[in-house]
Amino acid sequence: MRNLKLTIQYDGTEYAGWQSQRNARAIQDVIEDALKAILGEKVRLVGAGRTDAGVHAAGQVANFKTTSPLDAQSIKNALNSTLPDDIRVSRIKDVPRGFNAMLDARSKVYRYTIVTDDILDPLIRNYALRATHDLDLALMRRAARHLIGRHDFTSFQTKGDGKADVVKRVKRIGVKNRGKTIYIEVEADAFLRNMVRNIVGTLMEAGRGKFKPADVRSALLARDRKVAGPTAPAKGLCLVAVNY
Amino acid sequence: MRNLKLTIQYDGTEYAGWQSQRNARAIQDVIEDALKAILGEKVRLVGAGRTDAGVHAAGQVANFKTTSPLDAQSIKNALNSTLPDDIRVSRIKDVPRGFNAMLDARSKVYRYTIVTDDILDPLIRNYALRATHDLDLALMRRAARHLIGRHDFTSFQTKGDGKADVVKRVKRIGVKNRGKTIYIEVEADAFLRNMVRNIVGTLMEAGRGKFKPADVRSALLARDRKVAGPTAPAKGLCLVAVNY
Repeated sequence: MRNLKLTIQYDGTEYAGWQSQRNARAIQDVIEDALKAILGEKVRLVGAGRTDAGVHAAGQVANFKTTSPLDAQSIKNALNSTLPDDIRVSRIKDVPRGFNAMLDARSKVYRYTIVTDDILDPLIRNYALRATHDLDLALMRRAARHLIGRHDFTSFQTKGDGKADVVKRVKRIGVKNRGKTIYIEVEADAFLRNMVRNIVGTLMEAGRGKFKPADVRSALLARDRKVAGPTAPAKGLCLVAVNY
Repeated sequence: MRNLKLTIQYDGTEYAGWQSQRNARAIQDVIEDALKAILGEKVRLVGAGRTDAGVHAAGQVANFKTTSPLDAQSIKNALNSTLPDDIRVSRIKDVPRGFNAMLDARSKVYRYTIVTDDILDPLIRNYALRATHDLDLALMRRAARHLIGRHDFTSFQTKGDGKADVVKRVKRIGVKNRGKTIYIEVEADAFLRNMVRNIVGTLMEAGRGKFKPADVRSALLARDRKVAGPTAPAKGLCLVAVNY
């Protein structure tokens, strides 16, 4: 039995998210269907991050077990010939049998893109959010600093199922800009549901002066979703890398 | 009677091109319909460049006459609220009554984007062509040099209607790269049908060694479409600017 690790890019606009679900087209299903056609056997993908509907990936990672004798490069080529052009496999390689893309991830990096202009370029309309207010990057960075480290992120979790471990370690939040485009990069050991989008929504409130940086600390301590800022839309979010 | 000049960005993927035509959705029609709803009168847009189906714009220019008393900024805001998100108006201003976006254009600049990688990033799949061969930029630049200046571009015209003036002046062809992405920028006083796409197809043949740079000069002199290279696909092309 071989274990293969895939690195995957996708435009999430047309999908119900990464994870298989009833009555909706998920990215996982599309890749599993393509692998079944190529390998002649049903395989099960284990994905590192369960991206939501409309969220994109530049570096999603997944693994699957197979008995196929096909070399990795041939499987990659066959996948990219079979998959729709909004999903691409950028790398594929044999890994030790014990490797699990979800359980072995040390950290994941998400990037959120915001444009502070009066219009949003049509070519990036599905990949960025247009901010309707000016945003002060210094205020956003000061607010972000309160979130770094090991914390209970209950206030930044949407509809928790009550089972998740709400303590996560945020390693880094970068707030950068290039012209009128702002990038917020968040790296953590793991994420709760909608955690990045809730952090981004809160930092945007900080950037327009509605939240003081210290309010972000209070929101964190309150362990109450209603106290933190709104959930930023899915389309601006991209899973850029998974580190092992 | 006022004359208003618009600068327009669009994703051409879902459209039959700029120009109005029967039984197909053109960008011109969509903007004219939005203007009719806003101004309460039917107006006629004059566009600088008739981009084909699937071709994009970062700086298309058009003008229209109206009796509306609405200020330009209000018309811009109303347009961007009314138009679908794959069309955006970046600027609008009152211009002298005699201004004609098509006839007064001194030059237009088109950019073509090519990716020389084994996969095409899903987020730019509609905005770039993936080259299936390596391309030598030095060869492409040497080939391009033969096209600069005033020439009969019959060999680079698709399905000429026999009426167009086939002599055009190409002011500049830039071939640049950033990593594995190649940008070909062509500026000319005017363009024949598919002229940029035929130039790009020919330069790509030069870049992979199938055309010698001198063959490009022969192709030009032959005044025969069959002698030049193939037509590059629409999706990689973008009208970036119109100069007056």
